[in-house]
Amino acid sequence: MIPVAILGASGYTGVELMRLIANHPDLNLVAVSSRQYQGQAVASVFGALEGRVELDFSAAEPETLARQAELVFLAVPHQTAMAAAPAILEAGAKVVDLSADFRLCNQQVYEQWYAPHTCPQYLAEAVYGLPEFNRARIKTARLVANPGCYVTSVLIALVPLLKAGLISPEGIIADSKSGVSGAGRSAKLGLLHCEVHDNFKAYSVAGHRHTPEMEQELSRAAGQEVRLTFTPHLLPIDRGILSTIYARPQNDAGVDEIRAAWLQAFADEQFVRLLPPGVLPATKEVRGTNRVQLAVVQDPRSGLLKIFSALDNLTKGASGQALQNANLMLGLPEETGLADLAVTP
Amino acid sequence: MIPVAILGASGYTGVELMRLIANHPDLNLVAVSSRQYQGQAVASVFGALEGRVELDFSAAEPETLARQAELVFLAVPHQTAMAAAPAILEAGAKVVDLSADFRLCNQQVYEQWYAPHTCPQYLAEAVYGLPEFNRARIKTARLVANPGCYVTSVLIALVPLLKAGLISPEGIIADSKSGVSGAGRSAKLGLLHCEVHDNFKAYSVAGHRHTPEMEQELSRAAGQEVRLTFTPHLLPIDRGILSTIYARPQNDAGVDEIRAAWLQAFADEQFVRLLPPGVLPATKEVRGTNRVQLAVVQDPRSGLLKIFSALDNLTKGASGQALQNANLMLGLPEETGLADLAVTP
Amino acid sequence: MIPVAILGASGYTGVELMRLIANHPDLNLVAVSSRQYQGQAVASVFGALEGRVELDFSAAEPETLARQAELVFLAVPHQTAMAAAPAILEAGAKVVDLSADFRLCNQQVYEQWYAPHTCPQYLAEAVYGLPEFNRARIKTARLVANPGCYVTSVLIALVPLLKAGLISPEGIIADSKSGVSGAGRSAKLGLLHCEVHDNFKAYSVAGHRHTPEMEQELSRAAGQEVRLTFTPHLLPIDRGILSTIYARPQNDAGVDEIRAAWLQAFADEQFVRLLPPGVLPATKEVRGTNRVQLAVVQDPRSGLLKIFSALDNLTKGASGQALQNANLMLGLPEETGLADLAVTP
Amino acid sequence: MIPVAILGASGYTGVELMRLIANHPDLNLVAVSSRQYQGQAVASVFGALEGRVELDFSAAEPETLARQAELVFLAVPHQTAMAAAPAILEAGAKVVDLSADFRLCNQQVYEQWYAPHTCPQYLAEAVYGLPEFNRARIKTARLVANPGCYVTSVLIALVPLLKAGLISPEGIIADSKSGVSGAGRSAKLGLLHCEVHDNFKAYSVAGHRHTPEMEQELSRAAGQEVRLTFTPHLLPIDRGILSTIYARPQNDAGVDEIRAAWLQAFADEQFVRLLPPGVLPATKEVRGTNRVQLAVVQDPRSGLLKIFSALDNLTKGASGQALQNANLMLGLPEETGLADLAVTP
Repeated sequence: MIPVAILGASGYTGVELMRLIANHPDLNLVAVSSRQYQGQAVASVFGALEGRVELDFSAAEPETLARQAELVFLAVPHQTAMAAAPAILEAGAKVVDLSADFRLCNQQVYEQWYAPHTCPQYLAEAVYGLPEFNRARIKTARLVANPGCYVTSVLIALVPLLKAGLISPEGIIADSKSGVSGAGRSAKLGLLHCEVHDNFKAYSVAGHRHTPEMEQELSRAAGQEVRLTFTPHLLPIDRGILSTIYARPQNDAGVDEIRAAWLQAFADEQFVRLLPPGVLPATKEVRGTNRVQLAVVQDPRSGLLKIFSALDNLTKGASGQALQNANLMLGLPEETGLADLAVTP
Repeated sequence: MIPVAILGASGYTGVELMRLIANHPDLNLVAVSSRQYQGQAVASVFGALEGRVELDFSAAEPETLARQAELVFLAVPHQTAMAAAPAILEAGAKVVDLSADFRLCNQQVYEQWYAPHTCPQYLAEAVYGLPEFNRARIKTARLVANPGCYVTSVLIALVPLLKAGLISPEGIIADSKSGVSGAGRSAKLGLLHCEVHDNFKAYSVAGHRHTPEMEQELSRAAGQEVRLTFTPHLLPIDRGILSTIYARPQNDAGVDEIRAAWLQAFADEQFVRLLPPGVLPATKEVRGTNRVQLAVVQDPRSGLLKIFSALDNLTKGASGQALQNANLMLGLPEETGLADLAVTP
Repeated sequence: MIPVAILGASGYTGVELMRLIANHPDLNLVAVSSRQYQGQAVASVFGALEGRVELDFSAAEPETLARQAELVFLAVPHQTAMAAAPAILEAGAKVVDLSADFRLCNQQVYEQWYAPHTCPQYLAEAVYGLPEFNRARIKTARLVANPGCYVTSVLIALVPLLKAGLISPEGIIADSKSGVSGAGRSAKLGLLHCEVHDNFKAYSVAGHRHTPEMEQELSRAAGQEVRLTFTPHLLPIDRGILSTIYARPQNDAGVDEIRAAWLQAFADEQFVRLLPPGVLPATKEVRGTNRVQLAVVQDPRSGLLKIFSALDNLTKGASGQALQNANLMLGLPEETGLADLAVTP
Repeated sequence: MIPVAILGASGYTGVELMRLIANHPDLNLVAVSSRQYQGQAVASVFGALEGRVELDFSAAEPETLARQAELVFLAVPHQTAMAAAPAILEAGAKVVDLSADFRLCNQQVYEQWYAPHTCPQYLAEAVYGLPEFNRARIKTARLVANPGCYVTSVLIALVPLLKAGLISPEGIIADSKSGVSGAGRSAKLGLLHCEVHDNFKAYSVAGHRHTPEMEQELSRAAGQEVRLTFTPHLLPIDRGILSTIYARPQNDAGVDEIRAAWLQAFADEQFVRLLPPGVLPATKEVRGTNRVQLAVVQDPRSGLLKIFSALDNLTKGASGQALQNANLMLGLPEETGLADLAVTP
């Protein structure tokens, strides 16, 4: 059993990590920190974990966690993550950072969208943690930057198509819809049941922070700069992202070529599910799982491709993918502990 | 009090008409038909109307309704509506048809998307019932074709912009999301709570029947053929449509010009609500009302316009608009009985 | 038009009052206060009211409101209400207090369940605002204590039965379930969508503050002390209370006698809806309305009566009832502005 | 790997069984039947199982299933189950029946609540499948009658208390609330999203079929006839039951004695979770799991015990318990394949 720890375990990604690790046969969760609940039993705050996670929340001291664990998950907000990472790495533990702090290679871009970067010396070393495209580097990484939730839904769909030149890198639109857990577990009016329930609306429409992250990786895949039009919306559900992506085919590509490119890229990928023709992704079918569902149709009137990508923002979009990365970094089979199917209905 | 009747009052648009007419000071609902519930009291089936709609459901005989009422709402499926309309018109009553049967001017287009048209002689006479753009003709019409729900959300936003030449008629994309009542009140597996709740997905992605209706009216506004890319999605709510529309500005238009065009077009329109800059439409804020909320932003990276349009698919998207049309046809003030604000939260 | 004002208009009961008053033909809303939003336009915070409530939130100064209005609604928390009421009354305006501060006649009982009472001199004057049982006194009152939401659902059902001696005052159980808006509009973790959605649980099971209020009024009706077993639960909906009440019949009462007593008590009551035999109350059918739905069955095995009472906690359970009281206090027809039917589905 | 099969796999209990068996290390699902989908791939109908259940639905022939499997789950409606069971048992396979057909020992009681019993010869042999109370007999059974969902929630809470004489067998009330999946996967108006969503109401209030089953087992535990007052309600969620049970303590029992009795009864039970004092069961915390959460408080005014019991109606209330029974019947560790924790939020 390999000891692991979570810094910031009382947010929704932290709780999801605890759930997943509790079911993992080879990992032993030795410490979880929370400023808010320090000293309280995990089970007294999160009843779903009662009887299976028998830890108390500890203080959020990175060094302490690093001494106990071989790998530490950072499930804290950006800025807090970059403040904690160096001490953990220097103490010899590996890090999977679920925040945005090490996702953007370019410090300037980070600072334009987020805040001053206090730990730029690790930017070059950090590995972008999308295993389907970056597996080899993740296996040997000390510090993995776990991708954003919206970002994962878009990259899984588009990277193989841009690499193969099947879609134009110009004019791509991602119209994405997410459940509310993506906004985190914080007591804000806008996240109340009375505000979200039975409602639907867009937000951050003039520039969401996931945009530069998508553009960085899409540009890498395309071999040229990609500028994306991205619109996030808030769904009245807890979990799930569906991205509806509009792209112009090129090089005579149609649905068959798109599907062939996906089949080739994901032939050995357990978590990427290309649905049969005529079947469309549904967030409920991936809820609580590490899966991405993909489908494509071509609009008969405009010729545009409509690409659909669904995942659970807390699992494949955050904590599930973090565990997938950790498995790779620790030499375990990548799928371990990630076999859950969605509980339907 | 003007006597009106509803053919097919036990579907969701019929029930919404009953609710609205019960609150209308100048209309007297004299008959409601339903094959399914013939002979039963309305209140015994729809408890929300108890004490205010004291009718029994009658047989669905158009002539009988026409003899009792000055105006008959057809809240039946397409094909059923065209079978009933002639008898009602010939008996001297006016008709607001909520189905698709008289929306498309071109019989061939109708038959390509729906089914053979058995009543084409009325296509030329039927007036397209979008009062904000067609008020004068509606006032003198005998037969009004009430627009589709998705269609209304798109037309209200785009018609003034196309007329003013502010957006390109090429490449428009409407990514729309609707509550489930749009699918009607029928016992189908796909409409069960267990299927819709906590779920989100697209449907009819290769060609939804509202597409030709949108194209007909957008082309009329643009003065040239418009081909639209339209993608409907199913929200886990009962009511509400949000259309996120992507369009390319032209003639140096930006957000200010778009807003100015809307302000001009809707200066005297009570039901179209242009939101202040920075505020975005929300389906919950128009639930149960005859309102459309509009907003626009320009994507700073791509320059594309993102246009947001929200309405209630059963009210402004169906029965509220039908009542708005009926008010016009009957010489009543257009807003009568349509003042409800959304019940929030 | 009679000028009225709201102290504390940015909570859910305040917003509901604004909606109802916006539709009221004889009331003119002249001022609304909010500490949180002072200086901001109501419409910029509550988009559903845009175009119909054209006020800015003002400072929460009771005297100022009292100078402008003939009647002031106190939609503030308990303790805040008792601090504001005297100044308003002394300035000559009437008061409907939606908090608990003047509901309990007995100062000691109030202080045992709430906090020290700083305004006991008004306890004797305050009239308990349940118009169905207390209409005459409300008409001449200066200060009305608007009943609690759970309380209203239980009293409407039980008061006539206790008065008529049809149920035993011993052993009554009220198992009540409420939507989350009853907890108010405050940024607390337990009220987040992610906590409430798709969940159901009991709370405050060892003593909810509505218990003494129910017991006060039930004891008055029974002519002897009534002790109630009350269990509130949290529903994953925004609005609505269903109380399932268990009571033992006495004096040979059965379903027929219960119904007869209700029919007699509520013969002229527009807002109390006794459902036909076999039909059960549903929160969705009273959502946004001032109605209470009632039904009763007798358990064939135990002989216990099962009494069902449904209402909307923000309307008949709070702001609708407050407006009903205000209508009476201002000499207006009691039903004015309260005719809304539920928006279904 | 032990071969098992499901008769009637396209209902919600069937789908839940497929999910659970797909995650079971020792069971091999060899056949699943469905009249509705015969010949179709499971994954084409139930996308959540795609890639993990690679069977086609077969015809519903009991003998065929029995030849392939060592144990057959009957996930069909009552009456259909009793028609299929004999052939399967005679072919040598074991049976776990999720219907009500073999739950009631007394044929007359069955026929009074359900329909004529065509297979009474197996009533004596059938073992009531509540492992926490009946483990030894289940291990050697050929035919296990899997308990009802409401019934399980009530029995787990009350059986130890009645056996220990801590509560009176008189006057017990179970006020239960269930998610809609308990009504099955059938296309009925009352199960539509538009009917259930945002709604709450009671149903079957004068006599639900789970009543005699509860009374049978409670009477057995009490050693005297128990008559229960039971009221089911419909929650706007897919899964989950919370039973709020009112009982009078006897023999000087209070909360401590109740908790002690539960602790003793469930000391070795992994699936029964007695919550710490002050914590209350929540359906969301057991969603998709085989757990039951229990808590008790004593009402300080009436002295009544309020007992809370939460489970997932499709897991511990149906398919999870069926798998727990199957594990016992097949000589496997009882918890195998049932370790899932709830996916929260």
